[in-house]
Amino acid sequence: MSTGKTQIVHILGGPNLGRLGSRKPEIYGFTTWAEVSELCQGWAADLDLELVFDQTDGEGELVRMIHRAGDGAAGLILNAAAYTHTSVAVRDAVEAVSIPVIELHLTNPDAREPFRRQNLLADVVTAGIRGFGVQGYLMALEGLASMLTPAED
Amino acid sequence: MSTGKTQIVHILGGPNLGRLGSRKPEIYGFTTWAEVSELCQGWAADLDLELVFDQTDGEGELVRMIHRAGDGAAGLILNAAAYTHTSVAVRDAVEAVSIPVIELHLTNPDAREPFRRQNLLADVVTAGIRGFGVQGYLMALEGLASMLTPAED
Amino acid sequence: MSTGKTQIVHILGGPNLGRLGSRKPEIYGFTTWAEVSELCQGWAADLDLELVFDQTDGEGELVRMIHRAGDGAAGLILNAAAYTHTSVAVRDAVEAVSIPVIELHLTNPDAREPFRRQNLLADVVTAGIRGFGVQGYLMALEGLASMLTPAED
Amino acid sequence: MSTGKTQIVHILGGPNLGRLGSRKPEIYGFTTWAEVSELCQGWAADLDLELVFDQTDGEGELVRMIHRAGDGAAGLILNAAAYTHTSVAVRDAVEAVSIPVIELHLTNPDAREPFRRQNLLADVVTAGIRGFGVQGYLMALEGLASMLTPAED
Amino acid sequence: MSTGKTQIVHILGGPNLGRLGSRKPEIYGFTTWAEVSELCQGWAADLDLELVFDQTDGEGELVRMIHRAGDGAAGLILNAAAYTHTSVAVRDAVEAVSIPVIELHLTNPDAREPFRRQNLLADVVTAGIRGFGVQGYLMALEGLASMLTPAED
Amino acid sequence: MSTGKTQIVHILGGPNLGRLGSRKPEIYGFTTWAEVSELCQGWAADLDLELVFDQTDGEGELVRMIHRAGDGAAGLILNAAAYTHTSVAVRDAVEAVSIPVIELHLTNPDAREPFRRQNLLADVVTAGIRGFGVQGYLMALEGLASMLTPAED
Amino acid sequence: MSTGKTQIVHILGGPNLGRLGSRKPEIYGFTTWAEVSELCQGWAADLDLELVFDQTDGEGELVRMIHRAGDGAAGLILNAAAYTHTSVAVRDAVEAVSIPVIELHLTNPDAREPFRRQNLLADVVTAGIRGFGVQGYLMALEGLASMLTPAED
Amino acid sequence: MSTGKTQIVHILGGPNLGRLGSRKPEIYGFTTWAEVSELCQGWAADLDLELVFDQTDGEGELVRMIHRAGDGAAGLILNAAAYTHTSVAVRDAVEAVSIPVIELHLTNPDAREPFRRQNLLADVVTAGIRGFGVQGYLMALEGLASMLTPAED
Amino acid sequence: MSTGKTQIVHILGGPNLGRLGSRKPEIYGFTTWAEVSELCQGWAADLDLELVFDQTDGEGELVRMIHRAGDGAAGLILNAAAYTHTSVAVRDAVEAVSIPVIELHLTNPDAREPFRRQNLLADVVTAGIRGFGVQGYLMALEGLASMLTPAED
Amino acid sequence: MSTGKTQIVHILGGPNLGRLGSRKPEIYGFTTWAEVSELCQGWAADLDLELVFDQTDGEGELVRMIHRAGDGAAGLILNAAAYTHTSVAVRDAVEAVSIPVIELHLTNPDAREPFRRQNLLADVVTAGIRGFGVQGYLMALEGLASMLTPAED
Amino acid sequence: MSTGKTQIVHILGGPNLGRLGSRKPEIYGFTTWAEVSELCQGWAADLDLELVFDQTDGEGELVRMIHRAGDGAAGLILNAAAYTHTSVAVRDAVEAVSIPVIELHLTNPDAREPFRRQNLLADVVTAGIRGFGVQGYLMALEGLASMLTPAED
Amino acid sequence: MSTGKTQIVHILGGPNLGRLGSRKPEIYGFTTWAEVSELCQGWAADLDLELVFDQTDGEGELVRMIHRAGDGAAGLILNAAAYTHTSVAVRDAVEAVSIPVIELHLTNPDAREPFRRQNLLADVVTAGIRGFGVQGYLMALEGLASMLTPAED
Repeated sequence: MSTGKTQIVHILGGPNLGRLGSRKPEIYGFTTWAEVSELCQGWAADLDLELVFDQTDGEGELVRMIHRAGDGAAGLILNAAAYTHTSVAVRDAVEAVSIPVIELHLTNPDAREPFRRQNLLADVVTAGIRGFGVQGYLMALEGLASMLTPAED
Repeated sequence: MSTGKTQIVHILGGPNLGRLGSRKPEIYGFTTWAEVSELCQGWAADLDLELVFDQTDGEGELVRMIHRAGDGAAGLILNAAAYTHTSVAVRDAVEAVSIPVIELHLTNPDAREPFRRQNLLADVVTAGIRGFGVQGYLMALEGLASMLTPAED
Repeated sequence: MSTGKTQIVHILGGPNLGRLGSRKPEIYGFTTWAEVSELCQGWAADLDLELVFDQTDGEGELVRMIHRAGDGAAGLILNAAAYTHTSVAVRDAVEAVSIPVIELHLTNPDAREPFRRQNLLADVVTAGIRGFGVQGYLMALEGLASMLTPAED
Repeated sequence: MSTGKTQIVHILGGPNLGRLGSRKPEIYGFTTWAEVSELCQGWAADLDLELVFDQTDGEGELVRMIHRAGDGAAGLILNAAAYTHTSVAVRDAVEAVSIPVIELHLTNPDAREPFRRQNLLADVVTAGIRGFGVQGYLMALEGLASMLTPAED
Repeated sequence: MSTGKTQIVHILGGPNLGRLGSRKPEIYGFTTWAEVSELCQGWAADLDLELVFDQTDGEGELVRMIHRAGDGAAGLILNAAAYTHTSVAVRDAVEAVSIPVIELHLTNPDAREPFRRQNLLADVVTAGIRGFGVQGYLMALEGLASMLTPAED
Repeated sequence: MSTGKTQIVHILGGPNLGRLGSRKPEIYGFTTWAEVSELCQGWAADLDLELVFDQTDGEGELVRMIHRAGDGAAGLILNAAAYTHTSVAVRDAVEAVSIPVIELHLTNPDAREPFRRQNLLADVVTAGIRGFGVQGYLMALEGLASMLTPAED
Repeated sequence: MSTGKTQIVHILGGPNLGRLGSRKPEIYGFTTWAEVSELCQGWAADLDLELVFDQTDGEGELVRMIHRAGDGAAGLILNAAAYTHTSVAVRDAVEAVSIPVIELHLTNPDAREPFRRQNLLADVVTAGIRGFGVQGYLMALEGLASMLTPAED
Repeated sequence: MSTGKTQIVHILGGPNLGRLGSRKPEIYGFTTWAEVSELCQGWAADLDLELVFDQTDGEGELVRMIHRAGDGAAGLILNAAAYTHTSVAVRDAVEAVSIPVIELHLTNPDAREPFRRQNLLADVVTAGIRGFGVQGYLMALEGLASMLTPAED
Repeated sequence: MSTGKTQIVHILGGPNLGRLGSRKPEIYGFTTWAEVSELCQGWAADLDLELVFDQTDGEGELVRMIHRAGDGAAGLILNAAAYTHTSVAVRDAVEAVSIPVIELHLTNPDAREPFRRQNLLADVVTAGIRGFGVQGYLMALEGLASMLTPAED
Repeated sequence: MSTGKTQIVHILGGPNLGRLGSRKPEIYGFTTWAEVSELCQGWAADLDLELVFDQTDGEGELVRMIHRAGDGAAGLILNAAAYTHTSVAVRDAVEAVSIPVIELHLTNPDAREPFRRQNLLADVVTAGIRGFGVQGYLMALEGLASMLTPAED
Repeated sequence: MSTGKTQIVHILGGPNLGRLGSRKPEIYGFTTWAEVSELCQGWAADLDLELVFDQTDGEGELVRMIHRAGDGAAGLILNAAAYTHTSVAVRDAVEAVSIPVIELHLTNPDAREPFRRQNLLADVVTAGIRGFGVQGYLMALEGLASMLTPAED
Repeated sequence: MSTGKTQIVHILGGPNLGRLGSRKPEIYGFTTWAEVSELCQGWAADLDLELVFDQTDGEGELVRMIHRAGDGAAGLILNAAAYTHTSVAVRDAVEAVSIPVIELHLTNPDAREPFRRQNLLADVVTAGIRGFGVQGYLMALEGLASMLTPAED
């Protein structure tokens, strides 16, 4: 399942994701964000994808990161964390880019507090993966790769 | 990514999915349900999984199919279609089984009519995949396989 | 007001309609469902329409009946009864067929309990008739006939 | 389907209906209000009904027209247009008359903006017809005629 | 309870009140609007008040009548009927006048349909009387008279 | 406007009314509850009514006072104050008595905080008076007297 | 507490009840549905009642079972499970029968998820029992027996 | 169905229940509260239960009665009447006792006004019985007795 | 900023605007409607626009004025006042015309009562200006002029 | 932090607080209400405050206690418990006194059931303390003392 | 229309505005943010205004920019973009400055997604302009200039 | 009330707090943020606490500050200002730290605009203080100190 030629994919994380591994491990697991980055770099390499992997706690900074993805990448995997539920700005940024955007959540937000059921991104992203933990990043990379590859490839 | 020994997985489809390929192809694509079945059989074989693939338009029948999955399968991939939004009975059946359940949608329901934002399954399933079309079934099978396999396998 | 050539029309009834005549006659009248069928057969014949007349209490069965109407009929008159207010599956089936669908109610649901004001079909059907009792079936057949007939016929 | 003796029926139209034919023809069609009047006069004559056909843009004027219908007519076909969704005064007027009132809409309001789902008349009228275009007026006249005629007539 | 010098009071009625006595007499009683007018003229004379008594079915006309009351009267008794529940225009007119305004209802609107519980006037009028039938007009005239009269008078 | 023979009327006040005159005089005026009692005794005597005048801060006690009014009085004037907005128990008590009940408020509750727009009594009382201050008690006594008196008396 | 002559009672169960004993035993207990049936047969015999005991996962099938109870039984004990919260069709069927219907729940649905607080049956059944576990069936049978027996019997 | 040794049970009634028999007998029946007390005393004796039977119109007093039941009784049957729908204090008291609490209503509150659908007790009581009239007290005593008795007794 | 050739623009005012200058001057200012008319005539002349300036308190009359603007004008500046918040009829009329419509408010309605936040016109007008007082009319005329003028003009 | 001269402070507790120490100790702790009283007496003495410490389960009695505090005290610390969420009467009493009122909760109500998020006191009290357990009473006394003391004292 | 002496005006843009011209040009047009800046500089110079023109994607940064405008500018034109709908922080900053603030939107947000109808700024700004595209900046500058200039200037 | 050994406490302020003293002094008082810092430093020293005192207008920056507090501090006093009402990110950060967090507001937010009643932090903080002005910081420090100190200290 190779894409034939190297394409750039961005993986972006939102607020508090940098604390992964130490924040509520009974919910989010013990893998740290640095380890996720390393795993994704390996998986991307296997899929002949070039990976930009980044994280921020700031809403405006996340908007700018999405702009940059829109300028240079072939696809975006976005875990906007808390901004999923509150940010029209991030939504506007996602709408402004013309590449496929995969919404990813480590856990299943709908199984948590009611306010996490409000999702401002779900209707503007291309597709979504939730509840597979870190494994979800591999699935998202594969799913994105298959979107980027012509069927006959 | 083999599971080491053959485990049974059920893939169940809800109402109107039998019409796939002819119903609103601009939304759901031109692949028929029979073709999805065939594709999944192949993918399952590659993953050393034994596959039970079924569909029904009836709420009660879907409840019974989930009961049967709970009795014999190691995992369930469920596209409950319209019942996702209206059926407490299907939800109760999902809660009653003790195997992992992956909720799958071919399209992104949140990008459609507002009433599709009510989801009675999202908080009782293990994980979810949406918007990848038929490709999502392969991803769900792989994700389920990785859940069923010990990491060291 | 003849259709010129024989076209097939389906008339489908939803749950509890089979009890017509004995259920709440002060609301629904004393005509039985069998008598409605007979009346409709006569009216259809007068309009040179071939009629398939059926009823079911099951949501899944009603979905399948609508599929069958979509496969062979030129038009559908649908009294989905209680499923009008609760069934996304029936709505999806109506949306999946490409023939005109007339929504019919013997009584005026808006003049009854508040939950009957939720209507999941009203925005996907072609037209609607309510409150004319059994006479409404004749009106629906005539209205459908006039939709199926070119004006110059 | 003759009523046996001549009875008076009023057909009343609410705001903006006078612009029919020029306002949003892709929704409302190209027939003008004057042409609808002419068609209805012909249909009424065929049914041995005497027809009063009127229209107004004013809420108070529509209330008065309904009063007049209640004083002299045997039945009323009312297309209250926008006032359907906002006018308690028109509703009160409909409730104040003791003749059958048929609510008519050229299009299907439920398939349009959400605020058109609020309907202040639906639970006080006798019956309703929607989505049949101008043909609906013929159906309403026939339906009203059959209400006014004893079955054995 | 005389006001000492003659002051002008307006009594204004909204839509459908002209039908009083014939509309739903089991709710509104058998007294006609003309008889109410006569009774009020007598009561006003007893209180040394000069009375302007008027009614309209039109929202705009009612607005203009309130303007006129604001220009020349010492107080206003307003039964806005249906416009009580829907008209921001009437509310704005009431807010624009600087005389005391008594809101009057023959029946108790809160004991009727739920939409009559929305009241756009209740928080801008000076006082209110409801449910006393025609007798309420006498009470309103007396209450208004006592507001207009210095206590020592 | 005499009742012809002496009938008993109860005037009951709810929580905080005993503080009248000292609580928020800019809203409720400077008349004390004792002075209201004295005024009402005088007005009742003028109308040949025997008056029971009482007040309590307790919900249960108010319920019992309404029971007692229902047992012996010909009519009840009730200013339930805060319990107007929260007490189903007081509502049930009002519904349980078969005498006319006038709801009275010194001020206009709708012109105050939004939660005062919830009124659990308005649809079970006979009539209502609001916003006339202490003068409202005289009006309520007169209105009640006219209800108790046969018209020809 | 005998009914004097043998009367037929139906006990009907809705979706997922067939799994009783294995589904969430910490909530529903370890008694299986077959054991409930046996217990009820014994209790009914003690009360001289003839018992029809049935269960289905299907909404339409439950509607038909209620029709059959309405045709031949003297009373119905209905545990509609999930359909309690979603089915207008089951509600319509309950309204269509003229025998007393007891709504029964093994647990207390109000102590569970918020959506179980929506109950479409509660206002059309005769009486209800909840939270007594299997013992509730005995209580319902006794309560029903006492409704069916004249007091002097 | 004897409990083997005498245990104390409290039956408590809320506001307006003391008027039973005279308040709305078409809804609540003609049996008085004193008669209910007598009936319950007899039924309790048959079940070898010692009964404390009490009623109050006051919210605070009902809270204290529940405290006392919690101190000395083995179980509580509570008909909180109107406080069922409004009292967090009564709810807190119920939560504070560690004995089983049966919620009882003579009628079916869900079949009455919409505000009676708000129930602040339903999710903290052990079980509930509604709509069986006075007979419900016997059923509640028996249900409670069976909870208090070891199965092998 | 001249339009090159004379085009007709309508400025229409809704209910109570005729009272401008006397109604709530602390909110709306002391300029009268006649003075606004004069100012606008001057500004329009400076922009080589021919101005029709009108006002009405009636909903139906405003609908008709909008129809007339749609027939002859190149643009419309509409201050629908209270009808902004309640009139579907005015909205329908705005939608029916094919010229640019500028919504104008002298004050900022969102800074006033909550019900003024409901705006039935905002999503069908071309553009909006609010809170600039009478100066807003000049701005609207200039903005409209720039819409009507080709950029190269 | 002495107040310089002895001032009276009232500490009032609402329903169920008298059970402190035995009711849900895992939430409210094991300190009894009598012990809280003793602790507060000591703390008040240290701050040169004279303390009135009282509790009631009754809404009306709590209203009266607040009246008494308003008459003689310099400040009030109020833990209205359940009445915080349901009582307009207590709110009216708080508004009626002109002394500073501190709202105190032992736990954090917002971290409990959703209905505890409705708070009828929060916008009329001077300040609030929640979640500090019994320690909160000391903090409230100190905070109140600092409000009562001139800064230069 | 000169202000007589040079005053400073700030024009601030919120998230995603920096992408103007490339983001959704069919909605926002093809003019870039840099070009808007240039146009505004020219228009400001014509009006003898000194212009500070800035943009940020960050909520906190926008708050700080508003603070700076409040410190040195005579007026502010604010296009807060997405933060219009979600940011209490930006609202608080607008409330904290004492200069006139004009809210500007290039398009008409009310004609877009429903969540854009929530506007946290509309009731704290001085005035608003929407839907005029880039031309709106000129209008806002002129409107602001007229606010800053004494009428006699 | 000394903690025995020096522990670190963070005090963090959210958006617009840096403007304290100049922003709406009639609400927030005239003390500047720098003065608050100084006061807190003194109070902390008295309590043998080491204080980190910081403020930011940025949501992401506040998230990072809370992370840092969680890494090194024994407790956190958080005045998140506007982010209290809108930020899931700040809430997630608070949930991610395992130290006690005191929510502090200078004023009483519930006494201000309705949207300030939405509080995303209240159910995840340990305790709260509101409405004591700057004095509240001293109280929070003392309350936190008592939480950090063993009772026997």
